[in-house]
Parts: sequence; C-alpha cells; structure tokens
Amino acid sequence: MAMMKIALDAMGGDRAPETAVAGAIRAARELPIEVVLVGREQAIAESLESYPQRPANLSIVHAPEVIEMHDAPVASVRKKRESSINIGLELLKEKRVEAFVSAGNTGAVVSASTLLVGLLPGIERPGIAILLPGVKGDTLLIDVGANIDPRPLHLVQYALMGDAYVRCVVGKARPAVALLNVGEEETKGTDFIKETYGLLEASGLSFAGNAEGRDIFSGEFDVIVCDGFAGNVALKTAESLANAINVLLKRSLMMSPVTRLGAWLARDAFAQLRKEVDYAEHGGAPLLGVNGVSIIAHGASSGKAIKNAIRVAYESVRHELNRHMVDAITLYAQHAHP
Amino acid sequence: MAMMKIALDAMGGDRAPETAVAGAIRAARELPIEVVLVGREQAIAESLESYPQRPANLSIVHAPEVIEMHDAPVASVRKKRESSINIGLELLKEKRVEAFVSAGNTGAVVSASTLLVGLLPGIERPGIAILLPGVKGDTLLIDVGANIDPRPLHLVQYALMGDAYVRCVVGKARPAVALLNVGEEETKGTDFIKETYGLLEASGLSFAGNAEGRDIFSGEFDVIVCDGFAGNVALKTAESLANAINVLLKRSLMMSPVTRLGAWLARDAFAQLRKEVDYAEHGGAPLLGVNGVSIIAHGASSGKAIKNAIRVAYESVRHELNRHMVDAITLYAQHAHP
Repeated sequence: MAMMKIALDAMGGDRAPETAVAGAIRAARELPIEVVLVGREQAIAESLESYPQRPANLSIVHAPEVIEMHDAPVASVRKKRESSINIGLELLKEKRVEAFVSAGNTGAVVSASTLLVGLLPGIERPGIAILLPGVKGDTLLIDVGANIDPRPLHLVQYALMGDAYVRCVVGKARPAVALLNVGEEETKGTDFIKETYGLLEASGLSFAGNAEGRDIFSGEFDVIVCDGFAGNVALKTAESLANAINVLLKRSLMMSPVTRLGAWLARDAFAQLRKEVDYAEHGGAPLLGVNGVSIIAHGASSGKAIKNAIRVAYESVRHELNRHMVDAITLYAQHAHP
Repeated sequence: MAMMKIALDAMGGDRAPETAVAGAIRAARELPIEVVLVGREQAIAESLESYPQRPANLSIVHAPEVIEMHDAPVASVRKKRESSINIGLELLKEKRVEAFVSAGNTGAVVSASTLLVGLLPGIERPGIAILLPGVKGDTLLIDVGANIDPRPLHLVQYALMGDAYVRCVVGKARPAVALLNVGEEETKGTDFIKETYGLLEASGLSFAGNAEGRDIFSGEFDVIVCDGFAGNVALKTAESLANAINVLLKRSLMMSPVTRLGAWLARDAFAQLRKEVDYAEHGGAPLLGVNGVSIIAHGASSGKAIKNAIRVAYESVRHELNRHMVDAITLYAQHAHP
C-alpha cells in the first residue's frame, strides 16, 4: 500500500514557512505519511537547511503566490490561483494527496475547499469543528465560523458530521449532541433555534437538548452545534479570556518576592495547565463536509501544533471519516424525506 | 433632601435571603441610601437577627411569593403578582424607590421591568449591559441576553445607552464603541451586522468599527454592542472557561509537594487575580432602557457582589444616567429621522 500523502500549506501561519517546516519535520518523523510542503520552493528549501537530518518522507510542491491573512477570502482564492492554498487544494481534488492542512487565512481555506474540492454528497455547507478541552472531557464545537447565517438543516448536518467525527476519530461510541442556546429549557431561543431543536430531536442522534455557553468548557456534551457567528464569538472570547487570565496571573505572581518564589516552585503545574487548556496544541480544526480532508490550524500555531494538525488529518483519513459522514447524511435524508 | 431609596429583591440569588441581607447590610453601612428589602418578611427578619448592629437605613416590604430560577419569565411575572420581583418593581414604578436590584430569575426581571415599569421614551428594547475587566481596562458588553433576536436599530440604541453609561457612571469622556463581529473588516458579517455597522457609522458616536470575540477581554474598546444571543453565549463561555481554568489549575497545583508549596506561597497572587477577573464582584449588570434603574446581579452573587450591585444602582441614580440616555436617544432620533 502506498504511503498516505498529506499536503501542508508551508506559507500559512504567523511565522511561515519556518513553523510549518518545523511541524512537517516532526510529523514526518512521527507518522507513517509523506508530508508534501506546498509553497515557495526557495523559502521552504532554506528553512529545511536548518535540519541536517531531514527525513525522506518530505517533498515540496512549488506555489509562487501567497494568500495573506488580511486578503479577502473569495476574491483572493479567485485571483491567486498559484497560491499555496489553491495549489494544495488542487492536489487534494486530484487525489494526489489525501488531506490538506493550513494555518493560513481561514476564510480562504473555507472558500477554496468549497470552490475547488467541493462538498460531500448531500452536504449543503461545510462547518469548522474544534475539539475543546473541558473539565469532564473534550467537546467538539461546530461551527466556529464557516457559515455565519445558517439554516436549521445546516446545523442538523453539523450535528451528524460532528457525531461521526467523535465516533470515528475520538473513538466514543454514542456521543451526546447538544444545541447551543441561551438557556436549557426547550422553549428558549429564536425561531431558528426552536426549529433546529425540533429537527435534532427527530434526527436519531443522541440529542441531549440545549447547551449554554457555560457548557463549552464543562465537557458535559460531546458535540455542541451552533451557528458560525455565535461559535466564532465564543471561541475568540475564550481565547481572549485565557490570554487575559495569563497576563493578569503573571502580573499578580510578580507582586512580591514570596509570590515570585511560589510561582517558580509551582512552574510545573503552570506548564501542565498550559498543555491542557491550549487547544492549539490539541491540533487543527477539521473543516467538515469537504470532499477530502481539509484541516485548519490556528494562525499562531507552533511547530508542535502544526504536527498535531497533521495528525488530525492523518486520523481522519485513516478512520475513513468522510465515508462515515456520508453514511450518516444519507441515512438521515432517507429517514427525514423518505 | 430625602435619602435615596433602593429596593433589593431579598428572595433572589442562590442563597436567599441570607446573601441578599448580607449585601443589604454592607450597602446600608457604606452608602448614603436606604435599602428596602423586598420579600418574605419573616425570612428576612430571621436573617437580620444574625446582625446585632443592624443599621437604621434598612426597611422591609413584604412580598409573599417568590419567582424561582427555573420559572418561565413572562408567565411567572403575570401569575406571581405578589412576588418580590413584581412588588419591588411596582415600588420603582410608583417612584417610592429610585432603583431595584435583583439576583433572581434574569428573564423575569427583564420581563417585569419592561411590563410593569416600562421603557424610557424612544427606547424600543431594554438591553443587559455588563462591565467586564480586561487587560487594558474595562469593556461594557451590551446586550448579554435581554433581546436575542434584535433589529439593527436596537443595537444602535444599545450603543447610545452604553456610551451614556460609560460617560456618566464609569466617567470616561468619549467612549470607543465597537460592533461585535466575526472579523475586523467592514465587509464581514451577516446582513444584519452590515446594516447595523452602517447605522453606527452615521450615529455620531465614536464608532471604532468591528470588534471580535477576542476583544471582549482585551479592553481595546469601552463599549461593545451585540445581539443578546451572541452576548449571552460569549458571557457564559467566559464564565465556563474561567471556571475550567480554576479547576484545572487547582488540579495541577496539587501534582507534587513542591507545586503545593509554591501554590501556598503564591496564594496572595491568586486572591488578587480572583478579585480582578471575578466580574460578579464588580457589581450588577444594569438593564438599560428601563424607565427607572433596574440592576441584575449574578445568581451566585456573594454579599459583597450584592453590595456592589447596589452601588451600581446608586451611581446610576446619582449620575442621572437615564436623563443622559434619553438625551442621546432623542438627539439621535432627530438626527437620523429629521
């Protein structure tokens, strides 16, 4: 059997291509895959030079253009046809690679995945799913920004895809699926939410009712579905708060020699916490619904985070996630509209 | 001049009436006001017995019924006419008190404030505003759940009211107002957001453009307006994450004798942080737009948090917040529809 090939956008992320290359090297060493670095050949080759022991399962595909973080998504995908995002996703479309990973412009990855690779049969809109660590376990939140004005059916499809993801990739048998709302009671929410609630109840999924913002990090539910606007706000709020707590804690810990000593003694505990809550370290966010595996990594990803995103891609391919999602969508469609 | 009277829902909050009474005692000692405890007279009197030095500027108004946390808001306000929320807000309507504070059922306080007291002239919907601590300063987020399906004009009114609040109560001359969105660029967001953006640009406020979830705790903006659905999700997500970090940090700090010693030495720093990030301690959330001052405190409020919520009520009355809000709304209406 040929080795699985995963394309990595070498030009994506805050310190490209260095971090992407660092992640690719780690992934190539740890996983039975070939990593295809897509981007400016010269810049990638220069970055690779700092690794004397370069693994053999790495290759480069040249892409002369770069979609910048501030570029308008759809327009840049249409204009920069030779960008690393476009060329990487063309490789995916032509099945020359089995997955694509990028820490670049999220909107551009969503647009290019949809426009170039297309969606799985029956899927109306792709959704960005992110696995967040919680007190009682991980929760997959979907959608965090691909689709900011969805219809109820889109959320049902997110629930079906999220359920399949948790079953196949996370390995949990019957995931508890919840709907993000402003209260627990069935009567809460907008008309959009109430309609979605009804569809989820009848979906055959293990629907656990409404979740609130406070459940996103409680680990009470395995999957929480939401519109991309609320999901994006929730995710970025969490990032911001985690950062604020970090800044304020550091400031407090510096307040006296005693607290400084305490902080130094407790440093392993802080490192442990950072590992647990830093979801960037948990790997990339799969763009579920694309006809091929497309993974979005955080723009501030470290080499390790890039490697973990590649691992998410690898696991998604290995567990045939898309086949399971299509099965679930097909079954639902037959059941809902017989 | 007669002393300012502020009614406190003695039956609201997780440990009513004990915490409410504790907060009332503290407020009566610290502020030049009379606190009117509204609720079951007997229970309040029993709670008061544990304070031998009871301040004179405290009184009780009997209310035999209690709206519970899980009661349906509108229905319970209509049915439980003798509840502490209804009776407290009747006192406000009849101008026998100048403000009302409750840590009870938020939905019921919103409904009862709107139905019984009514809105300020020109205001279409009330909005819950909450002052959140951030790295660079505080940010007023409005609305966090009173109005989950607003129209663009509602958000403009929230912006005008939030701006007045920051000027009058926080004391900042020209607040920077932003619109919560999924990206910084003007072209981002749903049609609802784009329409709101245009109205805010033309509002005469110091409109700073789009904010993202990550700005809620950055302190970059003085006021961030949003629909109540996204605001509620953001706020509860933040609560949940702060709680998760707390649990995980404690767990990490127990990992070894060395980290436990470090944690003990650094305990003052943790206490300082808790004080800074615990927005419940910062006081209640004003329900802006009501024709009278109505303040919502967190259900889990401590006595100190209740006292701080009463202080917010006191400051709002003292600075004639409502007059300033009406002026702003009137000016906007003349300017927008001359």
